Amino acid sequence: MIDSDALNIPKSSFPRVVIVGGGFGGVALAKELSGKEVQVVLLDKNNYHTFQPLLYQVSTGGLEPDSIAYPIRKILQDYKNFFFRMAELQQVVREQKIVVTNIGELSYDHLVIAVGSETNFFGNIEIEKNGMAMKSIPQSLNLRSMILENFEQALLTDNLHERDALMNFVIVGGGPTGVELAGALAEIKKGILPKDYPDLDTRRAQINLIQSGDRILKEMSEKASEKAEDFLESLGVQIWKNTRVTDYDGKKVSTKTKLEFEAATLVWAAGVKGVSIKGLDAENFLVPGNRIKVNEFNQVVGDSNIYAIGDIACIQSDTTPYGHPMMAQPAIQQGTHLGENLVRLFDNKAMQPFKYKDKGSMATVGRNKAVVDLKKYRFQGVFAWFVWMFVHLFFLIGFRNRMVVFINWVYNYIRFDREARLIIRPYQRDYSKFNEPRTSKKEV
Amino acid sequence: MIDSDALNIPKSSFPRVVIVGGGFGGVALAKELSGKEVQVVLLDKNNYHTFQPLLYQVSTGGLEPDSIAYPIRKILQDYKNFFFRMAELQQVVREQKIVVTNIGELSYDHLVIAVGSETNFFGNIEIEKNGMAMKSIPQSLNLRSMILENFEQALLTDNLHERDALMNFVIVGGGPTGVELAGALAEIKKGILPKDYPDLDTRRAQINLIQSGDRILKEMSEKASEKAEDFLESLGVQIWKNTRVTDYDGKKVSTKTKLEFEAATLVWAAGVKGVSIKGLDAENFLVPGNRIKVNEFNQVVGDSNIYAIGDIACIQSDTTPYGHPMMAQPAIQQGTHLGENLVRLFDNKAMQPFKYKDKGSMATVGRNKAVVDLKKYRFQGVFAWFVWMFVHLFFLIGFRNRMVVFINWVYNYIRFDREARLIIRPYQRDYSKFNEPRTSKKEV
Repeated sequence: MIDSDALNIPKSSFPRVVIVGGGFGGVALAKELSGKEVQVVLLDKNNYHTFQPLLYQVSTGGLEPDSIAYPIRKILQDYKNFFFRMAELQQVVREQKIVVTNIGELSYDHLVIAVGSETNFFGNIEIEKNGMAMKSIPQSLNLRSMILENFEQALLTDNLHERDALMNFVIVGGGPTGVELAGALAEIKKGILPKDYPDLDTRRAQINLIQSGDRILKEMSEKASEKAEDFLESLGVQIWKNTRVTDYDGKKVSTKTKLEFEAATLVWAAGVKGVSIKGLDAENFLVPGNRIKVNEFNQVVGDSNIYAIGDIACIQSDTTPYGHPMMAQPAIQQGTHLGENLVRLFDNKAMQPFKYKDKGSMATVGRNKAVVDLKKYRFQGVFAWFVWMFVHLFFLIGFRNRMVVFINWVYNYIRFDREARLIIRPYQRDYSKFNEPRTSKKEV
Repeated sequence: MIDSDALNIPKSSFPRVVIVGGGFGGVALAKELSGKEVQVVLLDKNNYHTFQPLLYQVSTGGLEPDSIAYPIRKILQDYKNFFFRMAELQQVVREQKIVVTNIGELSYDHLVIAVGSETNFFGNIEIEKNGMAMKSIPQSLNLRSMILENFEQALLTDNLHERDALMNFVIVGGGPTGVELAGALAEIKKGILPKDYPDLDTRRAQINLIQSGDRILKEMSEKASEKAEDFLESLGVQIWKNTRVTDYDGKKVSTKTKLEFEAATLVWAAGVKGVSIKGLDAENFLVPGNRIKVNEFNQVVGDSNIYAIGDIACIQSDTTPYGHPMMAQPAIQQGTHLGENLVRLFDNKAMQPFKYKDKGSMATVGRNKAVVDLKKYRFQGVFAWFVWMFVHLFFLIGFRNRMVVFINWVYNYIRFDREARLIIRPYQRDYSKFNEPRTSKKEV
């Protein structure tokens, strides 16, 4: 029997599973538990699920933010004995089996941590303050606004040096996010900037992709890396390998070598880490990268009724010393698998260990340009690009979202355009570093 | 010859027309001036044109904000000698023929004020502070977020009184905006709330539409008013006529009579006024409603090279003692007409007086429910609703926007749904008025 509590969840004779996080993992788990003899409470700080793989298209005006978000309540509508609360997790109190949130406390029988990951600045506060992250829809909209504001600002300065800096993009991190963002920006530079800013020499705009290692897309095959580099270079992206960014003051990007960039925009896509959770943040719970150590049943060490899935969970094994990749597929599979295991548990059956089915990985660079690594097949180019689009449409939740995204893609493809270049949520950065105060000038 | 100036607009041997505002009027004017021997500088505080008639659908989760916004730079792309600057007008200095903006000063040969209107709270600061307006996309998103946040909050209180207030909507103003918003909310109450909030008695949600006069849609025919009332009542909207709201403290709505409402949401759609412009705000420039007095050539009194068009302009005549209605059609027609007049002026021809062609008006209440008054025909119901949709799609700028809006409408129609019920930009109101601090409760 569970107490009624501050979140107004009714009592139930079924065990209560509290899922924290409505991302890929949490939603897959909820789906699996629907119709089972269980009460499910899903908590998320947002009232929507975010389709993170397409955030870069929101940032670059290719998609509307609403198209890659889906109301969590709508996902749960058809499930009985499911409750959603918009709440931010503040603490887990294991001894009392409660979670503390910003709207009150909630007791659980089983707790599943599925809060995902956040941008990892590796402790560099300056980069965190001055650089842009792209892990959420608001962050993506901030980046979209800032990119556009930079160009509006570039129009106003006569200092060529400043103007170049305002049109200079430095993307740190050569993973799929960095590669896809760099490719999209390069296409914007080519197809949109000259038309939108006829009074600006947009050929001087630069897109720099910086990778600490010796190849981009290092989780993929060497062929994919090579091809992606070719694609990016053909679009005019400058790739800097074996280069480690050490600092960014809002204008100057420093690296470990003598290389420096003057850039108004630095996007940090160089790493993610698990979100910190009070009560589960002791060292014995964690592995490097702030992920929560779990066994092959996704159980948190030392606690049989707390689980973690997705980006925040790390199942260490001989074959996966660093856990599974922090992306959608492992989260979905772990969510589904944990759902099955919980049902087994309630039926007094033995839980089954999680086995990851690697379905391959892919990244897109631009129109007709993508790289796909499947288990047996590797391919690049137009067909890969179609596969990439099909897979992303397939995994988007909701028919309306799929249709709207599809329409946007077809339109953008035919017209070489991205019409959502709107500053609806101004970023309002301080440009004092870039421009002297302006007054009317004398006639030259 | 014009000086180059702080906004970096190049010199031109053609006369410079500065248009302030990229709404219906400003855009129509720009279009008319394209290809003419003129330099055009369009200023707007946003980088997008807003299709205001559909803002209420953004507020109610039926449309994505990006779908009713269109990049101004894209509109101007094909026009030669056109310049856009994202700038907010601060002052007009008539003696020097310059406008002062937040990014610097700009000289003009001809100045067109097309800044539109803003919500008129008639000096009531409490209502302005606690009520919601719906005249821009950010405001509409704020309203969307607040509506959803109110329901999330209603789940958390045990005080029935408070809960009812959180689910109570008061819409002040029975014009098209108020009517359309009330209808949309009523449909949400019926079709979405019971599914989204199974643990809340959403039948208790109320939608109140308050009108100071004795009928709603008072600018339309009596038949239209009557029918719109029928439609709204059939959807469960409570209409309060001859009722004047006098105050709102964030919870209690006071009226001139004894009638009171306890409501967390008050939407103020009871009036608009011209935006104030320093330098054109002296009494002799204005008519009641803060609109700028212009002659039949849209020229501002006493200044042959300053013009005003659209909502902010008032052409007083015997037939139009209060000027033209503050809506899209007069703005578009005045913009086009002024463009023709300016060309006449440059050709040393006489300007022609503006004549308004009333194309009728319409409002929608809900699915299959709209009212249309044309010059010769008046009709209500399903056909009116189709006409309403067609006309709105037609006037939306851009093929992509039309497609995406169309897809959303078809989807919403078939599924009785509105999937953009997303709190992407939290409104974060202070609920302390509605809820005591909550702690875990003892088992009852």
